[in-house]
This record gives sequence, structure tokens and C-alpha cells, in this order.
Amino acid sequence: MSKIKLSDHPTTPPSDLKKKKTESKTIDMIIKIGELQNKLYAEGKQSLLVVLQGMDASGKDGSIKSVFADCNPTGIDTYGFKKPTEEEMAHDFLWRVHQKLPRKGNIMIFNRSHYEDILVQRVHKWIDDERAEKRMRAINAFEDLLQFDNNTRLLKFYMHISYDKQAVELQERIDDPSKNWKHKADDWKEREHWDEYMKCYEYAINESEVPWHIVPSDKRWYRNYFIAKTVLKTLEDMNPQLPALEPEK
Amino acid sequence: MSKIKLSDHPTTPPSDLKKKKTESKTIDMIIKIGELQNKLYAEGKQSLLVVLQGMDASGKDGSIKSVFADCNPTGIDTYGFKKPTEEEMAHDFLWRVHQKLPRKGNIMIFNRSHYEDILVQRVHKWIDDERAEKRMRAINAFEDLLQFDNNTRLLKFYMHISYDKQAVELQERIDDPSKNWKHKADDWKEREHWDEYMKCYEYAINESEVPWHIVPSDKRWYRNYFIAKTVLKTLEDMNPQLPALEPEK
Repeated sequence: MSKIKLSDHPTTPPSDLKKKKTESKTIDMIIKIGELQNKLYAEGKQSLLVVLQGMDASGKDGSIKSVFADCNPTGIDTYGFKKPTEEEMAHDFLWRVHQKLPRKGNIMIFNRSHYEDILVQRVHKWIDDERAEKRMRAINAFEDLLQFDNNTRLLKFYMHISYDKQAVELQERIDDPSKNWKHKADDWKEREHWDEYMKCYEYAINESEVPWHIVPSDKRWYRNYFIAKTVLKTLEDMNPQLPALEPEK
Repeated sequence: MSKIKLSDHPTTPPSDLKKKKTESKTIDMIIKIGELQNKLYAEGKQSLLVVLQGMDASGKDGSIKSVFADCNPTGIDTYGFKKPTEEEMAHDFLWRVHQKLPRKGNIMIFNRSHYEDILVQRVHKWIDDERAEKRMRAINAFEDLLQFDNNTRLLKFYMHISYDKQAVELQERIDDPSKNWKHKADDWKEREHWDEYMKCYEYAINESEVPWHIVPSDKRWYRNYFIAKTVLKTLEDMNPQLPALEPEK
């Protein structure tokens, strides 16, 4: 398989796509996603793990809010991985991740994930390359386990925004009072490591056995459309069935 | 590496070993294990996972009680894996195991373990061979993760008793009122699958990357000696150090 280079991938929508028409299609898909999630929960035999990774302000929170808006909160959960706690640091990197996996019938959305342990930690050289490579192999084995032993489907999205677009988004968090709560000075510092992050993302994407979806994320309307379309296709393929009552004996 | 066959391994002590002298050596080792466990806890950088597997009445509980008698309960834990709960069954087989792993500085003793998922489940054909083989690969990756990412040392013991000795032990649980609480009719039923169990144990032992210690377990005094000796050697090799105060600046 040939290796991907992120700089070859667009961060903007295809030029022939109309915004209004696309948004209306997205709304239809969001409703269908809600219907299928209901069936998945009722069936209770398969689960879906959605992993969202991307630079700060690439739209992870916004996508979750939009794409899963029509799901029943019973049966769907989100977990945002933060800086590890002392207890988490006293265990292997997958310890805290394993606990949060979806049970059969459920959807779990990871806002950041086990991939941070080969991204931020590698960029800042808190782990060396050898450790990063061992972790990558452990991730592949871990993701394989979820699939063969728990009927878990994995959907991994890399939210691909441009360097310039990130600056606009981060600046808005300063200028717009309703977004001030999202501002963190550290995000501007992380931005200085942009090229190293791209290299580490490329490594993760290229070495993963479960493929990634690279989402052009500069435009919210196209980003949501892209993710909704992929989620819907996956749920349709999983084809959950409402269990019927057993015939009386 | 050549494959082991359990029937080639003794279940009784070497004939030249004196019981009284061996028991006195075991007591000395148990004290040293306690001292090293204290250092391991104080150091807080490495952990030890002890896995005990064996047929019913092979002495798993008894070994734990004896060998770790001198450890400080702070810093050491035991977990006995029972029939999975409904919540556990709704996840992959390693989900409940991962949560119980020792944090840095601690010893964890598993009384039964993730190996049950390729033993009892395989013997009763609740899983097919393909699933068992995939699980074995997942176990190897999982055990590798603990070692490279959390400084965890693994010690796996197979408690090797003879078919005849098991009958004596199970019968005692019926005859001796102080042991009645351990009697379960199901244990006699499982005994009927002895040969299948031996085959599945041999598979697990032969396919494991982290080697197993096969413990001749017909005699309590030798079994305890064997395990204590192995645990002590491992802790000595881990060589935990009491941290000293940093010099004042």
C-alpha cells in the first residue's frame, strides 16, 4: 500500500459542490443516523467506535454536536481524553482507553484517543521512536481485538485543516466573547510544532491497519457532510435489526 | 522452541528433597519476598503481575495465602476472575482484565485470568478454534504491552496436579466440614473434561510468548517452595531501590 502525504490531501471542499444543497443532504443523513442508532441499540449485538483526531480547532467538538444530533443519548456516549491523571500514568497507555470502549449495542465517540500517545508525546519527545513504534503495533493489536472479539466497528477520522485556517479559528476564540471559554494560550504554542505533528499523523495513518478517513475540514458544512456520509454508510453496512418477539411456545 | 507435553512433567516433588528442610527454606524466602515487596512499593516504578492457573483444587488459593503472607496489603492485591457478568460479556474478553492490572509499585495476583477465555470456553466449545487462536495472539500482544509500556513483570504459573490427586482434594471438601464451603458439584463435572483441559493448557503454554512455570502441585510444601523461589528470584532481578531524599539545594 502506498504511503499517504497529508500535503497531497485537500482541506477544502470539491469546487463543484453547492453549500446549500449539501447542507440539506446532511440533514437528511443525520436523521437516518438517528434511526439506525436506535436499531443498533435495540439489537444489542454490535458496537461502533468513532475516533476523532485533529489539530486544535479542527472541528472535533462541532462535528460530534452536528452529526449525532438525532441520536438517542441512551446508547451513545462521548469521551474526551485529556492530559493523563497520575493514576492513568501509573498504567500502560491503553489502560484508560480500554475502559471506555462501547458495550454491544452502543456507539462511543472518542474526542482525541489512544493516538495522542503517539502524537503529542512523540512531538515533544516524551517518548522515543522505538516506544512510538511499539505503541503503534499495540494499537493495531488492540483495534483488531475489538473487531474480532466484540463485533465493534471502528471509524477513524483525521480532521484535516490548513495551517492558515487554524489561525483564523484560534483568533476567533479570542475575539468572539461566546468562544472565549475555548481559548487556551497553549494552543498557540502547540501550533509552532505544526510540521512535526503532520509527520506524526502521517506515521499513524500509514501504519494503522484499520484505515483512516481524511476529512477536508476547513469548511464546517463540508466536514459535517463528509463525516455524516461515512457514518451513515457504515451503519447501513452494519445493518442492525430490530429483534422481534419470539413466537409463543 | 520445542513444544511441552504436560504428561512429561512431574506433579510430585523431586525424590531427594526433604520436606522439613524445604519448608524452613520456604519460610525464609517468604520473609524476603515481603521485604522486596516493600521496596517495590516505595520505589513506585515497576509492577509485578502473577497469574495462577490450574484445575480446581490445584492449590491456587493456598499458594497465594502462603507465599505472599509477609507482604504489606498496601501495594498488593488479588483478583479472582469468576463467570463474566452481563456487562463484561458485552465487551471483548480483555476488557475486564485490563482494568485490574497493577499500577506502578504494586503486585497483582490473578487467581484465574484471561487464560480462562481460551480454556473453559474452548473446552465447552463456546468459542471455536479460530477465535481461540485470535485470542491467543491478542494475549501475546497484551502481555507485551504491559512489559514495554508499564515496566510490568509477568510471572505465570500452571499448577500441575494429577488426576488422582484432584479426586482426593475434591473429596476432602465433602468430608471435612471446614472445607465444605469450597465444595461445588460442578467441579466434579468439569473433571470429566480433564483431557480436553490438558490439551487447551498445552496450547496456551506452548503459544505464549511470556513463558509459563509448571509447578508440581501434588504436595503443598513443594508447591509453595517452587512458587516462592520463583517469585523471590524475580523480585531480586527487578532489584527495586528505596528512593533517597534529594540533596537540599
